[in-house]
Amino acid sequence: MRTKILSGYEESSIAVNAVILTIKDGELLVYLNSREKEPYKNLSELPGGLLRKLESAEQTLSRKIKDIFGKKNVFLKQFYSFTKPNRDPRGRVVSIGFIALISPDKVANFDNFQRIGTLPKLAFDHKEIIEKALEYLKENLDNQIVKEFMPPYFPLNGLQTVHEIIGKKKLDNRNFRKKIISSGTIRKVTMIQKNVPHRPAVLYRFI
Amino acid sequence: MRTKILSGYEESSIAVNAVILTIKDGELLVYLNSREKEPYKNLSELPGGLLRKLESAEQTLSRKIKDIFGKKNVFLKQFYSFTKPNRDPRGRVVSIGFIALISPDKVANFDNFQRIGTLPKLAFDHKEIIEKALEYLKENLDNQIVKEFMPPYFPLNGLQTVHEIIGKKKLDNRNFRKKIISSGTIRKVTMIQKNVPHRPAVLYRFI
Repeated sequence: MRTKILSGYEESSIAVNAVILTIKDGELLVYLNSREKEPYKNLSELPGGLLRKLESAEQTLSRKIKDIFGKKNVFLKQFYSFTKPNRDPRGRVVSIGFIALISPDKVANFDNFQRIGTLPKLAFDHKEIIEKALEYLKENLDNQIVKEFMPPYFPLNGLQTVHEIIGKKKLDNRNFRKKIISSGTIRKVTMIQKNVPHRPAVLYRFI
Repeated sequence: MRTKILSGYEESSIAVNAVILTIKDGELLVYLNSREKEPYKNLSELPGGLLRKLESAEQTLSRKIKDIFGKKNVFLKQFYSFTKPNRDPRGRVVSIGFIALISPDKVANFDNFQRIGTLPKLAFDHKEIIEKALEYLKENLDNQIVKEFMPPYFPLNGLQTVHEIIGKKKLDNRNFRKKIISSGTIRKVTMIQKNVPHRPAVLYRFI
């Protein structure tokens, strides 16, 4: 039971929304659903939902992610909470934004994934949520976030491509190699590429 | 008016809490208030408060920060939202956590600042909020967050000290210099230290 101390303030519903990203054919893709109900009926939206009683945001999100991807382990990171008072026409709803990154080799079906570059009109402030997620990713490129997009072993140019797609700019090969190797986040492995039509590249893994 | 779509879910109050940090005499300090009311009367707590109608989290926080520091410009960064259902005994309250970093030369009064290493028992989950903030800072050391702790011009060893305090470990001078210079985030300035009892150091600024 709520005491008087907290009365006089507006009550709110709490939602989570997930920006689920993958990379395919050199493009960043985001997972969207089509809304079946008003408001914004038939527009695309990010997956998500409201927190139930006794649920933390992380628990709500795990439940939603399981609905979409089954039991697969998905990397989830809270990146920002969206609190503008009028972001939902139904009443005050705060949405806690999460980023989920999925390596394309773990995606069974790309039907709901759409290219970031050519998004349709979205429900609520979901366009803003996606933009903020991309900004967050870009700011955190030096961290191990990109790791989640990568297979366990990868050549350096594969990693560079992911950095280029997220950072939205071409990088200089030599500088990238120098910087990433000196960052101490990756390590060379004693394996080489197989079945490639060029000289096999040295493979790395994240430490 | 809230429609039926959102009924059946628990209503919540939304709060903000700020982890306001500064560095003094080689130690990380956090700003704490003493609670004047139950629950947790007389325990220390992070500054913060509930969102008013038509306020975003950022607006609530700016209001609170202005109460504490006057009109000073303070760097604020949302880092995590705390949503455990029972974190507040008065009812469901979600708290949106912000980090504020203040250079010690902008702090007029250190009375409310306490050393991170020797914190008293705190109200609510505020200890957890502080721990999460420190974890966030540590993960983001490579970003420009530390910039906010620094004066406009600084020698490299001053920057190294801040990294060491946040990262909680001694760093190797040569490696630190090499890494920070190659990161492209700082630039040498054509000024040298004055009035120091040793050979004046080269000064840098953030780009």
